[in-house]
Amino acid sequence: MNKITIFDSTLRDGAQAEGVSFSVKDKIKIVKALDRLGVGYIEAGNPGSNPKDLEFFEKIKSVALDHSKIVAFGSTRRRNISPAEDGNIQALLSADTDAVAIFGKTWDFHVTDIIGATLHENIEMIYDTISYLKEQGKEVVFDAEHFFDGYKNNKEYAMKSLDAAVQAGADCLCLCDTNGGAFPDEIYCITKDVAETFNVIVGIHTHNDCGMAAANSIMAVMAGATHVQGTFTGFGERCGNAGLSTVIPDLQIKKGYICIPEENMSMLTHTAREISEIANLKLYDREPFVGKTAFAHKGGMHVDGVSKDSRSFEHIDPSIVGNERKFLTSEVAGRTTVLSKIQKIAPYIEKNSEETSKIIDKLKKLEYEGYQFEGADGAFELLIRKELGKYKPFFELETFKIIGEHPPLAQGQTAAAMIKIKVDNQSEITAAEGDGPVNALDKALRKALEVFYPSLATVHLTDYKVRVLDSNSATASKVRVLIESSDGKDSWTTVGVSKDIIEASWIALVDSMEYKLIKDIEEKYRNYL
Amino acid sequence: MNKITIFDSTLRDGAQAEGVSFSVKDKIKIVKALDRLGVGYIEAGNPGSNPKDLEFFEKIKSVALDHSKIVAFGSTRRRNISPAEDGNIQALLSADTDAVAIFGKTWDFHVTDIIGATLHENIEMIYDTISYLKEQGKEVVFDAEHFFDGYKNNKEYAMKSLDAAVQAGADCLCLCDTNGGAFPDEIYCITKDVAETFNVIVGIHTHNDCGMAAANSIMAVMAGATHVQGTFTGFGERCGNAGLSTVIPDLQIKKGYICIPEENMSMLTHTAREISEIANLKLYDREPFVGKTAFAHKGGMHVDGVSKDSRSFEHIDPSIVGNERKFLTSEVAGRTTVLSKIQKIAPYIEKNSEETSKIIDKLKKLEYEGYQFEGADGAFELLIRKELGKYKPFFELETFKIIGEHPPLAQGQTAAAMIKIKVDNQSEITAAEGDGPVNALDKALRKALEVFYPSLATVHLTDYKVRVLDSNSATASKVRVLIESSDGKDSWTTVGVSKDIIEASWIALVDSMEYKLIKDIEEKYRNYL
Repeated sequence: MNKITIFDSTLRDGAQAEGVSFSVKDKIKIVKALDRLGVGYIEAGNPGSNPKDLEFFEKIKSVALDHSKIVAFGSTRRRNISPAEDGNIQALLSADTDAVAIFGKTWDFHVTDIIGATLHENIEMIYDTISYLKEQGKEVVFDAEHFFDGYKNNKEYAMKSLDAAVQAGADCLCLCDTNGGAFPDEIYCITKDVAETFNVIVGIHTHNDCGMAAANSIMAVMAGATHVQGTFTGFGERCGNAGLSTVIPDLQIKKGYICIPEENMSMLTHTAREISEIANLKLYDREPFVGKTAFAHKGGMHVDGVSKDSRSFEHIDPSIVGNERKFLTSEVAGRTTVLSKIQKIAPYIEKNSEETSKIIDKLKKLEYEGYQFEGADGAFELLIRKELGKYKPFFELETFKIIGEHPPLAQGQTAAAMIKIKVDNQSEITAAEGDGPVNALDKALRKALEVFYPSLATVHLTDYKVRVLDSNSATASKVRVLIESSDGKDSWTTVGVSKDIIEASWIALVDSMEYKLIKDIEEKYRNYL
Repeated sequence: MNKITIFDSTLRDGAQAEGVSFSVKDKIKIVKALDRLGVGYIEAGNPGSNPKDLEFFEKIKSVALDHSKIVAFGSTRRRNISPAEDGNIQALLSADTDAVAIFGKTWDFHVTDIIGATLHENIEMIYDTISYLKEQGKEVVFDAEHFFDGYKNNKEYAMKSLDAAVQAGADCLCLCDTNGGAFPDEIYCITKDVAETFNVIVGIHTHNDCGMAAANSIMAVMAGATHVQGTFTGFGERCGNAGLSTVIPDLQIKKGYICIPEENMSMLTHTAREISEIANLKLYDREPFVGKTAFAHKGGMHVDGVSKDSRSFEHIDPSIVGNERKFLTSEVAGRTTVLSKIQKIAPYIEKNSEETSKIIDKLKKLEYEGYQFEGADGAFELLIRKELGKYKPFFELETFKIIGEHPPLAQGQTAAAMIKIKVDNQSEITAAEGDGPVNALDKALRKALEVFYPSLATVHLTDYKVRVLDSNSATASKVRVLIESSDGKDSWTTVGVSKDIIEASWIALVDSMEYKLIKDIEEKYRNYL
């Protein structure tokens, strides 16, 4: 039997991360995403420490879930009080979930020095709390806080506290490396000892303070744990928790365990990105399996190798987890990458066609000037079109003028731009104010173009990046501007390079608008082309 | 003997990451930072695949290094050609380094299916190349590409290719998990087999595709490897390489090995941040040991626990790696660090002085707004002076006006700035043209100030960096500008934050000029102060 129970704590331990705070609506969206993926348990909050969570627990009852059980989180009872009198434990029960997770101390130092209890009192707190919750008919996960530190410091006491939980009826002993300071070799040996000693489900909960969270989870499973806690995509206090978007595919694709229904594995990337979006945190580009660059190849030899046989430089096929292979367009990248992009626009062009050489030459020239097309597929598509003659400008710039002024022109509006453009001999002149010159120019250009192309109203910029290319000449050095745009359906990136940040932004802005207009034409007239 | 050789490949494998591209000047700065930290080897480029690297290898010869050896990287000779005739190997030699790293195939599938050689030919390619390089007097690291995949697929062949390298005189066999698909248990067993079979230094080079890069490096060392390759801060193709800012403290602080001089460990955070700044990539907040939130506590119980005894929720003391504890809801952070800087200006101020609290509050407020003083000591010194009242403005800005125009005003001059300032009731109005608005404003301000302060003529800007802080609102998002200035004797960095890039640049420019003027006064009147 190699089934692993996945226990997600994005909404509880994940919410301990700096900058993360979920509304009730956010939480419900995340629960639905995790349920679709097929996660077994979702730890959704601590009703005792966060009264707002009660609203969530009330609302979630009416949401039908296919795979996931909702779990409320709390701690063992306080000293000198019975569970029935403990307000936090009563709050926990009011969440009305079938399963609860209870953390308790297993590191002697924490018992005596942090909560100021005797070692014996703590054992009773564990036993009483779990017994009481079992009497209430709950499924109980016991989170053995700091278990690995406890085991290393006083093995006998750490094991005794687990024994109290088992005697009280705990369904699962989850071993927590709360400080994230343990290593795979220790995790393996200690988990093995626990799994061999107690006849209940053993779980693992790790943190990434030494960069070991995922490895420690895997090693615990290899030692006998069958319940794995973590968060998407590793959110959590300090360096975060074990990232389930890493641990699930590691266990399931590479190690042969079953964590989620096989047919859902291709939803993994989408789920990770959706949860990051909801949390309003950028998903780390290099995130294993689900990151933007997780399957991106730049070196020429790597691109060649992957084109021959993807196993040569990819440990798995990216489509298994719903991600995509990416050949970064760069002068190191070589002909194969460029060709695959040309053929999207002109399928008849071949590797040795004159056009291919022409485009590669142009690419090299632009990269030499400081352009970078790695992350700018929109801009590269326009470059190909221009070189192939499959392009006609959508408007002509007559003039623009930007004024920046100190003191500011108006409240928070430090600059203004005036622009005059021409479309089919019809001129349009307009102006806009903005937070700085680039913002003002952006607004003025849109305003003028929307007169002719109303669909541009759906486009908004989602990212704007500036990179100084060669700092030798300081404020006169070249800058590269990358702009990411979206029309709600697709997103694309364009790029501009100049010594003048306004000109560089202008180039990228114009390409962004033109890319959208070409996309519209393609969608509308696809059948005629 | 538990000494580990650290082999940094930020400049070679790190440069394979999306969005990373180093100028020669960047590379030299990174070499200096790594040398200061005490890294043993710095792999700096591949002269065969990148002719630009030759300029770097030429320049670096005149840089005196205390700890690091520079390494050039290349591959085994091509088929049917001798090393002496192989252009890439000759390019490698022209780098004129004492040590070289050579990668070669050890996975039979790669030999036959990707480079189309016979298994025997590949063995000869390894042997010939290393023999030739040894004859040239080089120290040779053999990077056994895809070694773990090779060993799993055809152990006999993988070991035979290592044997060829050893017979040819390789000084180190570095086992590479090129695809990042291996796990700690496999890495441990396979590395152990190699270390027991061959009597040379064994190294480890891992990638993070399964989230295992750091753990795999540690397990390899526990199995006998004594040479560890990686990058700062894990930059590299796809999911990146083993991050040395994680692996070094893991090995040295937690596992008792020696990687860098003990007294340099507290430079780790600074080094990681400096290299990220140079690469213009945001250091991941949750990065183990060196990230912004690596020691940040949010949960009330955690903050309480850490206040009682830091061991309760921290696996190490953050100051060991030069990082800082952060209470996200409280205000105790960083006093010691800040105090040392205050005392430079006002030695009589103490940890509990009211002024210290005032400065810390101001610092927190500014950091919240997006300022960062990590790399901006000049700006921080001015902040302290302003808060202590040891500051009087050197001039007053009456107004500036910037005009950007398309088509350009004059050849290559896309913007003009007009400025009016006042010094001691005397006004000066002037104007300048420039490459873009920031450059024009910079020139105009200097021109006006030099009338009153001729020493400013010696100041020039040596670096100018722009970072978009919050990309959500695209062209209206906040930017942080860092300016590095020099008067030929000293150099200092100042910082400005605003939604308007011109305003952000203005703040940093003014601070830069004022820093210089204060420095002049201090030098001139030191004996009177």
